[in-house]
Amino acid sequence: MSLTDRTVPTDVALNTDLYELTMAQAFFESGRGQDEAVFTVFFRENPFDGGYAVACGTGQIADMIEHFRYTPESIDYLASLEAPGGGKMFKPAFLEWLAAFEPGVTIHAVREGDLVFPREPLVRVQGNVVACQLIETALLNLVNFQTLVATKAARVVQAAEGHAVSDFGLRRAQGPDGGLAVARASYVGGASSTSNVLAGKIYDIPVFGTHAHSWVMAFPKEIDAFRAFAASMPNNCTLLVDTYDAESGIENAIVVAKEMEARGERLRAVRLDSGDLAKLAKYARRRFDEEGLPYVGVSASNDLDEYTIQSLFAQGAPIDSFGVGTKLATCDPQPSLGGVYKLTAFRKPGERAWTPTMKLSEQAFKRTIPGVQHVLRYKSENEVPMGDVIVFDDVAADLSGLARDVLDGDTMYDFTSGTPEEVLAPMVEDGHAIAAPEPLSVARERCKNALMHLDPAIRRFLNPQFYPVGLEPGLAELRSHLTQLEWEAAHAHASAAAGERE
Amino acid sequence: MSLTDRTVPTDVALNTDLYELTMAQAFFESGRGQDEAVFTVFFRENPFDGGYAVACGTGQIADMIEHFRYTPESIDYLASLEAPGGGKMFKPAFLEWLAAFEPGVTIHAVREGDLVFPREPLVRVQGNVVACQLIETALLNLVNFQTLVATKAARVVQAAEGHAVSDFGLRRAQGPDGGLAVARASYVGGASSTSNVLAGKIYDIPVFGTHAHSWVMAFPKEIDAFRAFAASMPNNCTLLVDTYDAESGIENAIVVAKEMEARGERLRAVRLDSGDLAKLAKYARRRFDEEGLPYVGVSASNDLDEYTIQSLFAQGAPIDSFGVGTKLATCDPQPSLGGVYKLTAFRKPGERAWTPTMKLSEQAFKRTIPGVQHVLRYKSENEVPMGDVIVFDDVAADLSGLARDVLDGDTMYDFTSGTPEEVLAPMVEDGHAIAAPEPLSVARERCKNALMHLDPAIRRFLNPQFYPVGLEPGLAELRSHLTQLEWEAAHAHASAAAGERE
Repeated sequence: MSLTDRTVPTDVALNTDLYELTMAQAFFESGRGQDEAVFTVFFRENPFDGGYAVACGTGQIADMIEHFRYTPESIDYLASLEAPGGGKMFKPAFLEWLAAFEPGVTIHAVREGDLVFPREPLVRVQGNVVACQLIETALLNLVNFQTLVATKAARVVQAAEGHAVSDFGLRRAQGPDGGLAVARASYVGGASSTSNVLAGKIYDIPVFGTHAHSWVMAFPKEIDAFRAFAASMPNNCTLLVDTYDAESGIENAIVVAKEMEARGERLRAVRLDSGDLAKLAKYARRRFDEEGLPYVGVSASNDLDEYTIQSLFAQGAPIDSFGVGTKLATCDPQPSLGGVYKLTAFRKPGERAWTPTMKLSEQAFKRTIPGVQHVLRYKSENEVPMGDVIVFDDVAADLSGLARDVLDGDTMYDFTSGTPEEVLAPMVEDGHAIAAPEPLSVARERCKNALMHLDPAIRRFLNPQFYPVGLEPGLAELRSHLTQLEWEAAHAHASAAAGERE
Repeated sequence: MSLTDRTVPTDVALNTDLYELTMAQAFFESGRGQDEAVFTVFFRENPFDGGYAVACGTGQIADMIEHFRYTPESIDYLASLEAPGGGKMFKPAFLEWLAAFEPGVTIHAVREGDLVFPREPLVRVQGNVVACQLIETALLNLVNFQTLVATKAARVVQAAEGHAVSDFGLRRAQGPDGGLAVARASYVGGASSTSNVLAGKIYDIPVFGTHAHSWVMAFPKEIDAFRAFAASMPNNCTLLVDTYDAESGIENAIVVAKEMEARGERLRAVRLDSGDLAKLAKYARRRFDEEGLPYVGVSASNDLDEYTIQSLFAQGAPIDSFGVGTKLATCDPQPSLGGVYKLTAFRKPGERAWTPTMKLSEQAFKRTIPGVQHVLRYKSENEVPMGDVIVFDDVAADLSGLARDVLDGDTMYDFTSGTPEEVLAPMVEDGHAIAAPEPLSVARERCKNALMHLDPAIRRFLNPQFYPVGLEPGLAELRSHLTQLEWEAAHAHASAAAGERE
């Protein structure tokens, strides 16, 4: 049961966009290949119009980095590529260097299950600029989707109000890895189990499942199918009752439940997978109670998400557990997080100080934050997070608890009454894992605690309250200053270009 | 360069929902384990409100089936599972049988790149009922998402009107397999290349890529970055011009293009990744033409899909190629196909005739089609598909070209002027591949041809014309008859259940 069974594909180093390799070759040849860089992964908006996101995938980064090597086969493949303009795409000297490459980077990231908010670093990578560039795609591929699914799962679990949620999404996922990512991140986000057996095996997640409609259709009568299932699996018997008609299915389940009881066994539940779930759940509950079978649960599935579950409870549906598939696995209605990887600082060999960089944009919204960023989360005495402060590069230098809003520099925050904690944890040092991977249940517990302490106004689905994220005042000033400089530089570039044309 | 490099995960047999295994155990113990079944994969609506879907993933089914074995490790894991009600979930006799299991099924499917329409079989599986059940999830996981992506890609390529489309979606995909599936299916759907290097290696897809914003940010001046890139990669040089200001970036690219020309090299293109792409593309085209650089192309990316590309051309944007990422990889706005796997016929050992089965539903929309279904596609003399006819189990028996609409039995179709072709192709016989996998380029060509011959009214995005799919008259009658019988049976079940309660 190793985390690496399926975390790392055969060829993790080739699991990349080609431009990481063409850029690497250009760095290699340009004499800039020894520069040191800092890159930051962040997203600009909370998914699902929500108030928070749940970090996930970061626990697998170290494993990915340790397996990030170019195999002889990969090198042969790269050597075979033709450039569009003729000749080979990659040169022998670069490929020789690549064959011996190990990404000796140092990585900090938000722990799995912890909360993360827009614009603050989810992952911070520091190291040789070529190494930082080469790992970009594999890193984004690892954390973007899992953070999205963990967030979706947390919302679904929140809507389920303590009732069990099982991930049923494998058949709608993007291949086996997609299914594994869904199961893993859903569990971190609070799901109780998964239908995905491989995920159960690899990640030690409880697995759940009983039977499908086809089981019932394979028998002449529904009750024969129910009896045969109960006979084979008396200690794991949940009957799917809506193959033909849900109400008659419930009646058949009652007959079988009584037969089981007579044998000293217990029917666990019935599952409803179509029709008016609220109405049918009430019918099932009433009938089981009338028949003296109060222990038989009612489980529901069929295109559920946080909103349908909320609506079912608003209608008083007595449902005990949920199977959530398609909308969890595809993160409907927002199937991507939009996490990006931006250069935020660099320095030449031998330099001690970092040169901050930022990507200017015509839209303030798209402007990045420079620095070797740390995040301080200020918490009140009762552990409630008050707000986060992004710090340029030295946590000790700024524990004032004052900050300017990350987007609107005129808005000030004062967290001086709180106690700061560092949000980013060290994951990889010089290419090696800092610690053994933690059990997924630890991440799941972390998520549960974090959400429990979060202001309910931030947790709610409709128009959630905004969680304050600010920049330490020095960083806010630096950013304003750089914005000015970058504008001037852009104009200088344009003038220079115009000049060179003449 | 084997198709199996990454098609098959370590443990394909465990890449499953648990209920396939619990049902298998129940079949095994119930004495029904020798029955033969037919299951059909189909979807109920075209994705993206379109008029067609492009089959994909079916070319990997044979490989998946041939690797579908329970390893000793898998058996150990299954043996370790506890049932919710106490005791072990699986019994030793069943696990022993499973350890020796090979899915000796026979499978027909729509060829990759061919068109497929709602309610007709995308895949038909015939074999031992337990085997059919065990492979369900892995099969859906393979064909559901790839068919969706191939369809999305075909739409994007259609909008691009002959200009190249490259898949940039890896970083937003569901892990490595998700990225591979996106690249593979996009290529079948008509994309010209992918940024995904691993996909290029495994599936022999052309790879594309140059540099990112970070390359420019790593240099003091944009033009230094452009010069260094051109120096390193003169035969694969596309410059990303919008890191600071796109217009000044274009001017810098002009300077570098002329320097390259002086060295006998050619700048291939500039890429625009933000801002008003139509306006900037026109500016770039005009400036390159003014400067005597008509060969420098304009490439665009940034959250593109079929609609934004159509809009860019409607505005006269002179764009030569497109990079399409997030919305292709996530199939935004419809991230799942909704393909299902339904039992459509079975027979007892020794029986020759099939007993058709169907899932009744309160909604006619959800009623399934019984039979060992074949599909005949009637084409006009000029190869234009006129409509499809689903046949119960014997193609020769019904080549009349008459059919009743698959949903509305009162609507009749007459395809007698056309020539029928069988749509489903044999893929697996008794568990073994019928043929070696075809090169992906063959599937891509098939898709191109199929779409070229399809009525443009069916291809259009807005309110596409409906492609006629009917049932042969005998099957339509059988379905009506079974609907009646099933209703009566459901009521009989309810009465019987009520009776047994008394």
